[in-house]
Amino acid sequence: MITTIPHWLLKQAELNPGETAIEMDDGATLSYQELHEKSLQYAAYFEKSGVKKGDHVAVLSSNRIEMPIVIHSLSYIGAVIVLLNTRLTAKELAFQLQDAEAALMVTEPEFHSVAGDAAHRAGLSREKIVEFREIHLEEAQPTHMQTEINLGDLFTIMYTSGTTGNPKGVQLTYGNHWASAVSSALNLSLSPSEKWLVCLPVFHVSGFSALIKNVVYGMPILLMKRFEEKAVINNIRQTGVTMLSAVSVMLQRMMSELGEQQLPDYFRGVLLGGGPAPKPLLEKAKDKKIPVFQTYGMTETASQIVTLNPKDALRKLGSAGKPLSTASLKIDAAMGEVGEIKVKGPMVTTGYYKREEATAEVMSDGWLATGDLGYQDNEGFLHVVDRRKDLIISGGENIYPAEIESVLSGMEGIREAGVTGIKDKKWGQVPVAFIVSDTSGAIREEDVLQFCNSELASYKCPKEIHFVDKLPRNASNKLMRRELLYLRKVDGDKG
Amino acid sequence: MITTIPHWLLKQAELNPGETAIEMDDGATLSYQELHEKSLQYAAYFEKSGVKKGDHVAVLSSNRIEMPIVIHSLSYIGAVIVLLNTRLTAKELAFQLQDAEAALMVTEPEFHSVAGDAAHRAGLSREKIVEFREIHLEEAQPTHMQTEINLGDLFTIMYTSGTTGNPKGVQLTYGNHWASAVSSALNLSLSPSEKWLVCLPVFHVSGFSALIKNVVYGMPILLMKRFEEKAVINNIRQTGVTMLSAVSVMLQRMMSELGEQQLPDYFRGVLLGGGPAPKPLLEKAKDKKIPVFQTYGMTETASQIVTLNPKDALRKLGSAGKPLSTASLKIDAAMGEVGEIKVKGPMVTTGYYKREEATAEVMSDGWLATGDLGYQDNEGFLHVVDRRKDLIISGGENIYPAEIESVLSGMEGIREAGVTGIKDKKWGQVPVAFIVSDTSGAIREEDVLQFCNSELASYKCPKEIHFVDKLPRNASNKLMRRELLYLRKVDGDKG
Repeated sequence: MITTIPHWLLKQAELNPGETAIEMDDGATLSYQELHEKSLQYAAYFEKSGVKKGDHVAVLSSNRIEMPIVIHSLSYIGAVIVLLNTRLTAKELAFQLQDAEAALMVTEPEFHSVAGDAAHRAGLSREKIVEFREIHLEEAQPTHMQTEINLGDLFTIMYTSGTTGNPKGVQLTYGNHWASAVSSALNLSLSPSEKWLVCLPVFHVSGFSALIKNVVYGMPILLMKRFEEKAVINNIRQTGVTMLSAVSVMLQRMMSELGEQQLPDYFRGVLLGGGPAPKPLLEKAKDKKIPVFQTYGMTETASQIVTLNPKDALRKLGSAGKPLSTASLKIDAAMGEVGEIKVKGPMVTTGYYKREEATAEVMSDGWLATGDLGYQDNEGFLHVVDRRKDLIISGGENIYPAEIESVLSGMEGIREAGVTGIKDKKWGQVPVAFIVSDTSGAIREEDVLQFCNSELASYKCPKEIHFVDKLPRNASNKLMRRELLYLRKVDGDKG
Repeated sequence: MITTIPHWLLKQAELNPGETAIEMDDGATLSYQELHEKSLQYAAYFEKSGVKKGDHVAVLSSNRIEMPIVIHSLSYIGAVIVLLNTRLTAKELAFQLQDAEAALMVTEPEFHSVAGDAAHRAGLSREKIVEFREIHLEEAQPTHMQTEINLGDLFTIMYTSGTTGNPKGVQLTYGNHWASAVSSALNLSLSPSEKWLVCLPVFHVSGFSALIKNVVYGMPILLMKRFEEKAVINNIRQTGVTMLSAVSVMLQRMMSELGEQQLPDYFRGVLLGGGPAPKPLLEKAKDKKIPVFQTYGMTETASQIVTLNPKDALRKLGSAGKPLSTASLKIDAAMGEVGEIKVKGPMVTTGYYKREEATAEVMSDGWLATGDLGYQDNEGFLHVVDRRKDLIISGGENIYPAEIESVLSGMEGIREAGVTGIKDKKWGQVPVAFIVSDTSGAIREEDVLQFCNSELASYKCPKEIHFVDKLPRNASNKLMRRELLYLRKVDGDKG
């Protein structure tokens, strides 16, 4: 069977040359024709710098307009893109550069120093670092241009951290990204006037997948440097944004900012990822008439693989929905009972780069064991309970931090909450909570404990309450529970 | 790379069990769950009748509700479906049954006699004919059910007639049909309230492809026994139909029927196939505010492969548009010049069944030579000129029947026109026209000739005008130009 398609950007330049492809929040825009031409020029430059089909090229950049151009230019050459997290230290970057066997690193001036340090540690010579400003744009195109995409070819490597050991490079093919975009369109429908706002980092699969939708659908995106609630709301109001990918805390902040106001009618909704969302948050959004489509996915599945369909969004509040039409889901447990979530489909990774053992640990027969716990209700809707590794086992009882966080975030005076387990001589583990109070700041520890006692079984009630200024989050604003304990104050300095 | 997906009907029964899948114009409906369950029951019956994965099963049926059930049931077993044209004679059917090596024929009571005759000629015993009424529905499902679809597997065989020799069986895989449905969704967008009206025969790819969209998108279809302008308009008005696939003559008749009236606002448009449409027809539709999306495709491309995007529909009236995002198009001629149209993409057939030579004649390197003539304008839009085999060469000049038909159909008093060539001692060939006049019937031969002289170069003017009651059309209402000559009256009996 044919597994090649015309190159998606080349195609959009043919189908919709003059249509806007990318808008930046500073007002810069690129049409598909311009994006195509700039990508060709970059590709010619990279080719001249020695990049060949199959080479691995690392990209270290924030959400700048150069980011999509670099991605498409490398794809025009057939190079594999290694996406680096801008929050990493030089040492961490060096590990990924070496592990992914990057032949070149492309970056922006802001990261001049850390990039230089990382390259040095990785044994990459200075001339193998290219900053955007050094790229000379000539009227040129690469001599070996990939006018077609072979869906089986490796496209990106993105690193994820496991519970132990070094990060692993998740390999995603063109076919993985294509299947993800197509399946999402079939699930959400696709309005002719769609515009997607991207404020999640493009180096994460959450932001990256929107760049792919941009060229697979021919749908414009508004790319923001970072999430900022006021700016996001303004952009939705002023530029006709219809969809937004976000994680819980972003939605939470948007709603605080909105106050009594609403979003315009043409706004179709928020695609919410990054872990189970607190139910009180979903209910608040419902009250404000902001459609929220919960999703479930990860780097290994090229973003969402399970999504709540718009028509079930209100009826099934709290569920992540059903697997996309090309995907399958199974939980090795009776209906309604919690077990590990396994998924399968054309968007699922072929494995971790050079990690056969780690790959074999999580993949078998096309099924990916996600490490997440969940259950399916009597209609087949998935409810994600928590990360398996975040599970707290206390006196033989399973405690899911997400459940406690959800309850806490519903309490007046609490803005955000994070829960994790600590060792306990008697129970093995017990839960402790970290709380960011809202601006009033009037909330007290006793009140929180009393609230928990009224809402949760006693073994689930946090044994410690820590008030903190903010919770540890990654570049996608996802809560990093393992880092909560660094915020824990020892007994003496409490309160 | 993974080339399996969950079975599309099984999937819709999981995603949208209670939603309407199929409506018939007699009011019968099937939800996805019901369609799935009935298909399982049929599959169990066929399995009991000896049908196994890979077997070829012929289906001879009009657009009845059993048609989609039979198709999905055979797909649940993994059988290959041979779609038979209900207009064929027993002899023609027998050829296809034998050629396709059909192990079983499924049909409806209406075709009892012709089916029996065809089976007898093909050496198929009487018990290998199953009429719908004989299928016993038990609470059962097949023991070897295909819960997944392998996109590389052969799904259907549909016969097309070449210019010479016997019809050839076009093989289409699941992947061909899937790519067609997905690519069409990306081109047309997909509204959450879409409903497609199917009045083209399901045994043709034009109707069949709507059954696939039905299960790939989870979009309801309204299946009509046949095209009838009044009923189609009523259905659009009364049942919320948003899209319709049609050929020119159907659109023409609908517009006559509409008179001064319009279609409701929610109606998104007519996907118009079956050959180049007369420009006056497209202009009339534009005046009536009926959006028409011209398409270009054939059995070998699993329906449309080139389509005019809604946003260009009015600006590029008369063009068939651009290749779908997964497809490519080339014409071995300079820009603006006429040449043979070649297409490529994941919806293109793998070849003709057991016809390696015929396949090699039209396919090379994944490119299909369509036998159609066309050109691309300076923006890359395809303009289909005519079938190469219908080209009339007169005194060394190329004459395209479609051009003359388009001019004729713009003349007041003419309802439909067909043009073909006849042999001529002096010029080699000359064009002759066959005309169906409108209800007033006041049009005269001299008027037509005068009109042609004012609109067309003299060598393109038809040398004979024949008034006829109707034009020869196939089951999809496509004009069969080769049969026009049977309508030609010899000199003496004219006018």
